[in-house]
Amino acid sequence: MSERIHARYIVETADEPRRAVEVMAGEQSSGTFVAVPGETADIRERSGARIESLTVVEDVDAPSLPGARAGRIYHRCAVELSWPLENLGPSLPNLVATVAGNLFELKQFSGLRIVDIDLPRAFATRYEGPQFGIEGTRRLSGVADGPLIGTIVKPSVGLTPEATADLVDTLAGAGIDFIKDDELQSDGPACPFEARARMVMAVIDRHADRTGKKVMFAFNVTGDLDEMRRRHDLVLSLGGTCVMASLNSVGLVGMIELRRHAALPIHAHRNGWGYLSRAPMLGWDYPAWSKLWRLAGADHMHVNGIRNKFCEEDASVVRSAKSLLAPMFPDKPCVAMPVFSSGQTAAQAADTWRALGGTDLIYAAGGGIMAHPDGIAAGVRGLRQAWEAAASGIDAEAYAKTHPEFRVALEALAR
Amino acid sequence: MSERIHARYIVETADEPRRAVEVMAGEQSSGTFVAVPGETADIRERSGARIESLTVVEDVDAPSLPGARAGRIYHRCAVELSWPLENLGPSLPNLVATVAGNLFELKQFSGLRIVDIDLPRAFATRYEGPQFGIEGTRRLSGVADGPLIGTIVKPSVGLTPEATADLVDTLAGAGIDFIKDDELQSDGPACPFEARARMVMAVIDRHADRTGKKVMFAFNVTGDLDEMRRRHDLVLSLGGTCVMASLNSVGLVGMIELRRHAALPIHAHRNGWGYLSRAPMLGWDYPAWSKLWRLAGADHMHVNGIRNKFCEEDASVVRSAKSLLAPMFPDKPCVAMPVFSSGQTAAQAADTWRALGGTDLIYAAGGGIMAHPDGIAAGVRGLRQAWEAAASGIDAEAYAKTHPEFRVALEALAR
Repeated sequence: MSERIHARYIVETADEPRRAVEVMAGEQSSGTFVAVPGETADIRERSGARIESLTVVEDVDAPSLPGARAGRIYHRCAVELSWPLENLGPSLPNLVATVAGNLFELKQFSGLRIVDIDLPRAFATRYEGPQFGIEGTRRLSGVADGPLIGTIVKPSVGLTPEATADLVDTLAGAGIDFIKDDELQSDGPACPFEARARMVMAVIDRHADRTGKKVMFAFNVTGDLDEMRRRHDLVLSLGGTCVMASLNSVGLVGMIELRRHAALPIHAHRNGWGYLSRAPMLGWDYPAWSKLWRLAGADHMHVNGIRNKFCEEDASVVRSAKSLLAPMFPDKPCVAMPVFSSGQTAAQAADTWRALGGTDLIYAAGGGIMAHPDGIAAGVRGLRQAWEAAASGIDAEAYAKTHPEFRVALEALAR
Repeated sequence: MSERIHARYIVETADEPRRAVEVMAGEQSSGTFVAVPGETADIRERSGARIESLTVVEDVDAPSLPGARAGRIYHRCAVELSWPLENLGPSLPNLVATVAGNLFELKQFSGLRIVDIDLPRAFATRYEGPQFGIEGTRRLSGVADGPLIGTIVKPSVGLTPEATADLVDTLAGAGIDFIKDDELQSDGPACPFEARARMVMAVIDRHADRTGKKVMFAFNVTGDLDEMRRRHDLVLSLGGTCVMASLNSVGLVGMIELRRHAALPIHAHRNGWGYLSRAPMLGWDYPAWSKLWRLAGADHMHVNGIRNKFCEEDASVVRSAKSLLAPMFPDKPCVAMPVFSSGQTAAQAADTWRALGGTDLIYAAGGGIMAHPDGIAAGVRGLRQAWEAAASGIDAEAYAKTHPEFRVALEALAR
């Protein structure tokens, strides 16, 4: 039997569900909106998308999105479709057009969201997947246990290369594991990439000479392809250990090419994720979307954070992080290290640890470190103490009594 | 004064609008969710996003999207922000992170949609823009006046290269101007690109020898970068005149690189547009989104069609098409040829002509040609007759009386 691509959706329709889903399957394979002479039974059998399952989950009385055919009741259904691999081959760009192309606009649906995908092994052969993942990131950063405690350069934009290096100096002196450029900062004239990379790496090297540990800095190489390659090569030549790219900015081809070129972990930023996901009955669930980028080669992927400053609920954040840690293929898991960020502080460490059941993550706090009343060094120590308590199962209040930076952080957050 | 990037949005907030928009401007430039030591007044002045205008448009009593801070009234506001070019430089990928990054997830907003962008001239210097546009497309296709009458190979997938070539033979014999691969068909094992391109071009050449006119066939080169380049080169070597790529599949870097490599017009397919746009208070308006791809180098861009089979309203379709025809820069207009498709038939020609005020478009009908009761050749002739009537200002019913293929098409559609 030929291998098939599977995709799961949640759809909402006022039509008879099976009829609506047949249109969806037809639109994404051999059908069109009227019968055409060439669509024979043989072609449908060979190339048509197959409805693997269809379950009405609930009925609602109003459409989630405008533009669909109206009815008195709208059926929300869990749907699984499958396609023969022969239609497109193991191609990520063509996979997107197949599982997430024109179907979102079909009049049959007042809601349509892709939930997850399951791909034939041929995709694992064709694409690189993460080059470093958790193990490689721990090795390069010298963090054997616990989360990588990280932060984001703030202000996001506006610092000169010198000022950025000064900040890195303070952070490295405070014992941080990981620092990243903000996604707004790549190679603007106000803070050129090359000058920033050189100055930052000089600082990091100086601290590494002293401590034996090289802080991992994710330099934002987002840009045109030749720029990304050149910036990557510069970071590599300077002894840097990570590059970062904004996925929705560079797209799949950009990410695939960056991975093919890269000799460093790729820190994948999901900014723009809101427009892909925030309408509950439209767009993408993270497990489906992130699999594209894991296969393309993302080593770290952002998942937001518990009690974040954005709109996402904690359950969704936890589900995202867990999905990154679940293998895509038995012999090629493509596990990416989840990056918790957005309003993360010492206060969320315990809950994050409980939800994830482990410490294979990057815990990036911006204001949560830099706004510590006793300064940045105290902010880093406070965060590390929070995670020590969490991973040891020690009550935060008790641990805080003997760990002043943690205590001051919690007190400041409670105000 | 330094040049600035401008972006317009529609936002919805239960907060005091100016306070909410200040958070939005801060998040996308020098701010973060708590005050940090490094964000000086000087940095804000130099690097901060500026609120250029803010107008409350209407108040509504329920939030459009979940997750936002609640209130009794939600204010919908038209907002314009601007950024100094120095923050990022004229970089399309970094532009996306700046104008359409993390802001969609801010708790302050129960709706946020980017409406349009206005870019400094430096972007026009940096990026190629369309290489052929309307004029080049008319030259290569031999269509001096009127729309290019086109169609999409259907069934979308499932035809062999031989069967595809047979269909092209019929279409070329019927005098069609333009044919495209379906976005589902690129280089799957069931219909390999090279065999399809060779067989299709042999047929097109044979007809060109007879008629002097070479049908423009948009071969779907969507794939990894090396594949796209190789397929483009094959099409070029075979004397083909167009390649096609799915924008949401390849991403900006893919499109920029394809354009840099290309010696043929690029037909840009927007499949997936639904997940970017269908929730009215989230995501992208077409004029903002399409400007990215016009600058990257799209020669043709899909805009859906009047009375399409999808959910989009006609006013939105018309606005999209008109936006593609409006210059981006006085000396580099980056005009892309709008492609009308999705359920297009002889019945919509007159309204499309009236709405657009011209015929600089590709009018692609799938079922609208192939399901003509008297066959494909009659379908093509009926469509051309429909456009002759429209562009001459002749009443469709009157014209149909003396043009049987048009009449039969209209009768079949009325059934």
